[in-house]
Amino acid sequence: MTTRIGFVLFDGAEELDWVGPWEVLASWSRLCPDDDVQVCTLAPRDGPVRCANGMRVLADHTWEDAPPLDVLVYPGGPGVAEQLGDEAVRAFVRGVAAQGALMTSVCTGSLMYADAGLLDGRPATSYWASLNDLARLGTGVQVRADERFVDDGAVITAAGVSAGIDMALHLVARLHSPERARQLRRHIQYDPAPPV
Amino acid sequence: MTTRIGFVLFDGAEELDWVGPWEVLASWSRLCPDDDVQVCTLAPRDGPVRCANGMRVLADHTWEDAPPLDVLVYPGGPGVAEQLGDEAVRAFVRGVAAQGALMTSVCTGSLMYADAGLLDGRPATSYWASLNDLARLGTGVQVRADERFVDDGAVITAAGVSAGIDMALHLVARLHSPERARQLRRHIQYDPAPPV
Repeated sequence: MTTRIGFVLFDGAEELDWVGPWEVLASWSRLCPDDDVQVCTLAPRDGPVRCANGMRVLADHTWEDAPPLDVLVYPGGPGVAEQLGDEAVRAFVRGVAAQGALMTSVCTGSLMYADAGLLDGRPATSYWASLNDLARLGTGVQVRADERFVDDGAVITAAGVSAGIDMALHLVARLHSPERARQLRRHIQYDPAPPV
Repeated sequence: MTTRIGFVLFDGAEELDWVGPWEVLASWSRLCPDDDVQVCTLAPRDGPVRCANGMRVLADHTWEDAPPLDVLVYPGGPGVAEQLGDEAVRAFVRGVAAQGALMTSVCTGSLMYADAGLLDGRPATSYWASLNDLARLGTGVQVRADERFVDDGAVITAAGVSAGIDMALHLVARLHSPERARQLRRHIQYDPAPPV
């Protein structure tokens, strides 16, 4: 059975928030065709999306014509601020969740999930500078400041930016196996050694 | 004085190879305007570039109309195979090096540098699966299999895919200061914790 993974794009999305998980999950799709994983990008409308630091990307679908999804990846970035309180964005997020998709976020993407009510009463995390907003936007969100990602079953939220790589490897381990996740970790030579 | 950093794009470039350093260096440009850093992307020709896993990007310039550069970032990916031995690509790479630019690579991007003769007699690294090719393409390349990145002054080569993030943080420390690099590390919340 096909696993369809959609990546939400929007103006002001932080580049690595979504390209980190993309690298892991789209490589999974490419390198392991027998696992039957499909990935696609979803933008609010046609035309190039301009990410937070100026990268311009063409998405595969608009939010309106998005195919049915098994997993959603919602990145963060400065662009999230404009989405909070927007009923169209809330409706899109709630609609994907209502399909039964596994909802995942990176960085301040979790603020949009909180704003849409998806995190009420749940443990969750976000970008280190946005943890207060996470608590404020939802009701009874159990903020986990020290976790790299929080898997609460139907929702997985990751910490800031680069944490999406760790979350995506966890996702592969959960959806397939730790062995497959280790294989993809090796593919991206993910033996991090921050020099500062 | 402005520091101009150009990111080479091409069909089949591995997404994280260049978006990892892009996140670090383009965030540096955006968050620290007084440091006067400019970033841009460079494609062989007009039109969308299709990266290795299907991400479609619009570049800021073509290789032909590239502005003068102080730093080049050359990613790897399956697309590099087609470039090896191509005199036009060799001429582009040698031309940027001849301007005095600091030449950096991620993953199999170093194979193109070796192919253009830039690594002859130098220590260098590459993707873990391509270290034999690195030795074969250059003359007297001192292959460093266990380094996350190798800084040989005029050329910095990084290991595979995610190693570009570590290399970019090193680059910020070298061009500005370890303090600035730590600030950007905090910005991308780079406290990696691979779950597998």
